[in-house]
Amino acid sequence: MGIILHELVGTDLNRPFSPHCWKTVMSLAHKGLPFNRNRVSFKDIPALEGAFSPKVPVIRDGETRVADSFEIALYLEDTYPDRPSLFKGEGGRAMARFVEGWSQMTLHPYINVVILMPVHDILDAPNQAYFRESREKIFGRPLEAVAAERDARHDAFTKSLEPLRKMLLSQPFIGGKGPLFSDYIVFGAFQWVRVLTPFKLVDENDPVHDWFERCLDLHGGIAREISAAA
Amino acid sequence: MGIILHELVGTDLNRPFSPHCWKTVMSLAHKGLPFNRNRVSFKDIPALEGAFSPKVPVIRDGETRVADSFEIALYLEDTYPDRPSLFKGEGGRAMARFVEGWSQMTLHPYINVVILMPVHDILDAPNQAYFRESREKIFGRPLEAVAAERDARHDAFTKSLEPLRKMLLSQPFIGGKGPLFSDYIVFGAFQWVRVLTPFKLVDENDPVHDWFERCLDLHGGIAREISAAA
Repeated sequence: MGIILHELVGTDLNRPFSPHCWKTVMSLAHKGLPFNRNRVSFKDIPALEGAFSPKVPVIRDGETRVADSFEIALYLEDTYPDRPSLFKGEGGRAMARFVEGWSQMTLHPYINVVILMPVHDILDAPNQAYFRESREKIFGRPLEAVAAERDARHDAFTKSLEPLRKMLLSQPFIGGKGPLFSDYIVFGAFQWVRVLTPFKLVDENDPVHDWFERCLDLHGGIAREISAAA
Repeated sequence: MGIILHELVGTDLNRPFSPHCWKTVMSLAHKGLPFNRNRVSFKDIPALEGAFSPKVPVIRDGETRVADSFEIALYLEDTYPDRPSLFKGEGGRAMARFVEGWSQMTLHPYINVVILMPVHDILDAPNQAYFRESREKIFGRPLEAVAAERDARHDAFTKSLEPLRKMLLSQPFIGGKGPLFSDYIVFGAFQWVRVLTPFKLVDENDPVHDWFERCLDLHGGIAREISAAA
């Protein structure tokens, strides 16, 4: 019956947006494994799979449940070693942790600002209340005050992509000639924005834009099937 | 007769400081290959090995000459595959390019400010003239004006190390349980400062400090043999 992926959506069940869930969609597609996507709201997550994890993605593969996109990638790599590799060796496994650190500490803080109101606006009333309360606790300010920083912080974000641009002078993917899980880590962050808002993170003449388009083309265009937010 | 490494020094021949040369010292030591260190000044470089490269490091291994620290690491990996790996697979090879991009575009711009006057001050008069002219052309300002930004930019630099700190929660080295070339890429940047100036890039309670100390302990403490600048 294939693997089940539990992933986050808002009121529109056809627009999954979580960056971490997208990492897992791409990981499963990369391995060529059949999977079913079970779409859930924020408030559904705590009860999933017998209260298995406070966050998605969660997968179930037969009797095995795994949470966390990086743990899932490691599980898939070790369980399906004959399928295309997500890491290409021990070094790739280790350095994907550095890419994850970069994505979460450099890209996510700004992208969280960009997607704040768009996420809020696609939720139903109970999920909106949960989202506002939990996020305002983290930020210590109203959502609207945080979201208002988007344009002023955009230049600094553009500059923060320099490591990726520099690397793209040597190779088309973080994984080298082809994509690896490290690409999906960063891809998830960009897809999060693409699904939620028409705001453009990067210009069309940016090499990062070209890299993102290459990722959208992967695995039969599975990530492009969800149209960009209009 | 072993490999010859041409590396940069100032008037004190015993204090090599170039970050790129340190990457190669650590790569050669990692492979356990015997090597001789030929120390040269900026103005010696153009004539080295029959005008082979405008920059060091350059190595000569028998009849083979290789320039550029990343190219040298690839050469050593491919030429001495039975020695300890510098990349641990194709994924590690690819992602080391990302670490290089991060180091050069995030760490080097600030460290260039930190080491500017210290480098100038350890050169002899002809090399000082070369250094001032070439660097002032790049910066478009007097060296002293650039160097004056050191303290004001330190907080932003500290923050820019967050990806490394985040990764160090998962593992002791960028290479995972042990160091790989990707560690030496970042190590070179920190050693550059350590050899040239007593200015502290990171506090002693910073996990990045602990990682750097672990690197200084590697390969018989080859990098610690050069004392910190006082």
